[in-house]
Formats: sequence, C-alpha cells, structure tokens
Amino acid sequence: MTHFGDRLTEVNRRTATPLCMGVDPHASMIPAIFGDAQDGAAIRAIDDFSMACLEQAIGNVAAIKPQAAFFEQQGPAGMQILQNLGRAAIDAGLLVIMDAKRGDIGSTSTAYASGWIGHDAPFPSDALTVNPWLGIDTLVPFINRADATGSGLFVLNRTSNPGACDLQDQIVNGQPLYQHLAALLAPLATARRGKSGMSSLGIVAGATWPEEAEALRTSLVDAPFLIPGFGAQGAGAEKATSGLNRGKHGWEGGLINSTRGLIFPKKAAAAGSLDEWRRAIAETIAENKTILNSVF
Amino acid sequence: MTHFGDRLTEVNRRTATPLCMGVDPHASMIPAIFGDAQDGAAIRAIDDFSMACLEQAIGNVAAIKPQAAFFEQQGPAGMQILQNLGRAAIDAGLLVIMDAKRGDIGSTSTAYASGWIGHDAPFPSDALTVNPWLGIDTLVPFINRADATGSGLFVLNRTSNPGACDLQDQIVNGQPLYQHLAALLAPLATARRGKSGMSSLGIVAGATWPEEAEALRTSLVDAPFLIPGFGAQGAGAEKATSGLNRGKHGWEGGLINSTRGLIFPKKAAAAGSLDEWRRAIAETIAENKTILNSVF
Repeated sequence: MTHFGDRLTEVNRRTATPLCMGVDPHASMIPAIFGDAQDGAAIRAIDDFSMACLEQAIGNVAAIKPQAAFFEQQGPAGMQILQNLGRAAIDAGLLVIMDAKRGDIGSTSTAYASGWIGHDAPFPSDALTVNPWLGIDTLVPFINRADATGSGLFVLNRTSNPGACDLQDQIVNGQPLYQHLAALLAPLATARRGKSGMSSLGIVAGATWPEEAEALRTSLVDAPFLIPGFGAQGAGAEKATSGLNRGKHGWEGGLINSTRGLIFPKKAAAAGSLDEWRRAIAETIAENKTILNSVF
Repeated sequence: MTHFGDRLTEVNRRTATPLCMGVDPHASMIPAIFGDAQDGAAIRAIDDFSMACLEQAIGNVAAIKPQAAFFEQQGPAGMQILQNLGRAAIDAGLLVIMDAKRGDIGSTSTAYASGWIGHDAPFPSDALTVNPWLGIDTLVPFINRADATGSGLFVLNRTSNPGACDLQDQIVNGQPLYQHLAALLAPLATARRGKSGMSSLGIVAGATWPEEAEALRTSLVDAPFLIPGFGAQGAGAEKATSGLNRGKHGWEGGLINSTRGLIFPKKAAAAGSLDEWRRAIAETIAENKTILNSVF
C-alpha cells in the first residue's frame, strides 16, 4: 500500500478536485424514490441511497466520508451497510475517510484502530477521524495502526460549530488551545511525510474560519486538511480552500467535504426516477468542482 | 422510566456498592475455556465470554460498562453481540453504561444519541459516555435524548492516562481546562437533579488523581461520577472513592469501574471449567466490593 499522503495527492490530481462527498444517510431526508426510510423499510432505503451516492462519487470526487453515526443509528444492520459501502468504495478506487471521531485510552484505542483503519479493517478506510481530547498518548495506537497499513488520520483540531470556542479556543500560554494542539501534532506529521511532501497525519480544520485555517497551515506545513462545512453549511469556495495548497494544476493538500450540498441538493429531492436523481447529483458534483476550481 | 440519577442511587443502595464491571472482551485475554478467540471462532468466544461476565454481574455489581471498541473491532457481528448484551443486562435490572465516547456536531450527535441512549436504542443503555472536545453545543442533542428517555450521560472531564495533561490540564484563566469544563457543566447538571439529589448528567473522573476528584466534586455537587481505573490499572479504594458521596449505608453518587481486575483476574485465567471460572469471578467481585466498603 502506498503512503496515504501520496494517495491523497494522486487522487487530488487524478480527479482534479479536493472535493469529498459526505455520506450521511439521514433517514428523514432520503428522497421518496428510495422508499420510505422512516418505516420498516429504513434499512433498505439507507442501503440503496448510500450505494447510489457512491456510484455518483466514483471518478468524480476525490473521496467519500461516511458518517458512522447514521449507520450506528440503525444497529448491526446499519453497520453491515457501512462495511459494504466502505469495501465497495475502496474497490472503486475512491479514498474512504471513515468519520467516526473515535478516541479512548491505551488498549481501547488499539481496538478502535483495528476496527476502523486500513483496507482490511472490519469498517475499512483509507483514513479515520480521531478525537484528541484525552491526549497525544491516546492517539499513538491510531498512529501506529495507520503507519502499519499505509493509512491516514485526521485529528479534530478546530471545528466550525459555535461551541468550538468552549474548549478549542481557550487561551493557553497566549495562544488558542487548537494552536497548542497543532504544535504538538506538527513534529508527528513531519515525521510521516510521503514522497509527495504530504503527511499521513492530518487535521480536521473548520472552513468557516479561514484565518484560522491559514494559521494552521503555517503550523502544519505538511499535514493534510479535512475541511468540513463547504456548501450547505455555509462556507464559500474562497474560505473552504484557504487551508489548501496550490499544486501545479489545482488544489492539493487536503479534502473539502460537502454533505448536504452534494447528496441532498434541492433539485434531487423531488426526482421522479432514479435516472433523474442521478443526473441531479452528477450535475451538483460538477457544479461544486467548478466552484472550487474557479478560485484556484 | 424513572430518572437516571434516582436509578443510580437506588442501585448503589440495593447492591450495596458503587462497583461497575467493565466488559472489554479483548480477544487475546479471553480464557481458553471459551474457545480460541484469535481464530475463526472469535465471535463465538467473545459472545460466550461477554454473556458469562454479565451472568456474574447480575445482582452483584451496580452496573456493567461495555466498551464499544472491542465489539466494533469484530465488525457487524460484534455489534450484534453488543446489542444482545445491552438488552440482556437491562432485562436483568443492571444499569448499562455504554462506553462509546461519542461526540460530533449537530445532527450527527442527534444520530449518535438515538443509536446509543435509552432502553429502546439499537445499542441500548441507561447512560452513554460522551466527548466534550467540540463544545457544549455538541452535547445538547445527547442531553435532549437523555432527558427524553430518563437516561444519563458521563462527559469525559478528566482521564487518568499520562497524556491527559496535553489538553485537559492546560491552564485557562488560572485554572486547569477540566475545571473550566466542570464549571460549564455544573448548571446543566444542577438543572437535571432527580428526587435523590443526583443529576442525570455526570462526568468521567480519573481515579488516580484523588485531589482532582475531590475538587471536581466541589464544583459538581450533584453530578454522578464514573470513576475508571480501580484495581488492575492501579488506583486503590481510598483514591477511587474520593469523588463519591457518603450515603447512610454506603457509597453513593457514582460508579467505580474495574475491568481487568474483575473479568480477567489471574485466578480465572487458568480455570479448567466454566464452573471454576464462575466461582473465580464471583469471588473476585465479592473481594472488590469488600475492599471498597472497607474504606467507607
């Protein structure tokens, strides 16, 4: 397996985009053509919808980011869908970012890591999102597993919700805590640079604070950034790309995630057929890529 | 459903202990009488071992705390075991603390909450552990679900690993960040007091720092404490009980968790039969209860 940072760089170039499709199958938002996700057929609708999203993603976006919560919400059957989705996406050459935000101490982190990191994991991925609240030592089992399987990690550094200020922005030694965290992560990221210069150790960096994303890029020169919040959640292309790098031909150095804007666009909600829905999603993806590339 | 804080107080009194059994079915540590958990029979061994632990817990400890990671590590089949274990424990009158340390923003937290909180959730529980790193607003969907189902929450406040200092201990406005977090949680906990005086909103408080546990108790008068690290991880009974309250007849106000010390004691490792293993676990539970009550 090649290095995650190199695979990310390669896929940014091959698909000509940093765009990542969030796959959050909200039962209440799945279009009617997939069946009624609120009744006993929820599992079927979520399965069909998730796989249909994947079909549209293949070759058109850099990565998919399934949100574990929406599969867990359906119990073991939902977890089976997540496993199938991850395997199918990897087989199709997409990067799979499992957005599970795991974090725990010692042997428990080791168990999460073997559950979620690598192409052969039960819930297979190219990279996993992890939560650093318990300390850097609790990230080490995740880092070790990522190193062993050519996988990546995205550490929750600065999120884009209003309450992010409660802990992440608190001032410690004259700087916000998320910058203190970035300083702890920087040498770990640099030690994991691939041939492309990109590390396998990255961060989640909220897109609605572009100044912060730029400052984080200065601290974490070689870390890939996973940037949420583009599109429906409000951040425009200028802001969303503020933490990325300018490659020769386009944006590199991370992924810009859009979920609702890509899988639940208004024009797909009322689709009368699967073909109509597919066309709407394909157009939406193309529009979003164009918007991101227009600010390059 | 009665209030979680009241159920906790009732179970502390009924079982005459704050002892909670951690159920972390490490495949490599399951005794041979349950089969070889490392080969293709892993699922069977984990299932049998987990249910055997539950049998010994019923009526003897206050609660069980299944660690989600060890079930996730086995994929969807492991999640089925976790679901069955949670349902069986609730049916048997044990409190079930799902130790999944979830945390995310907005609608994703809502999805996690419906997956993990309440007796009717796919992964049923009386309470869930949650991670506050993303901010108090991200805990609100968990709190709402807990309120609606008579359930509890344990917010990761101060953990007992060495790296807890990286973020939790950083000094903010003259106090460690975990105390700042406690101050944010205190009014939310007080607003959720049950008839017994205990809140449904609690914290995870590392047991190897007793002074900190006592200080946290001062900040969070009515919050239940989930105290990890008793026994095999090192904390003695004096330290482990330092954050609890003295009831009329014994410790109240929280749960003291022991995992390896209860389910993987040395004397059970070499058990030649299931009956021998059961006796070893029953004796171990009784010894641990006696130790905790001896410092009352």
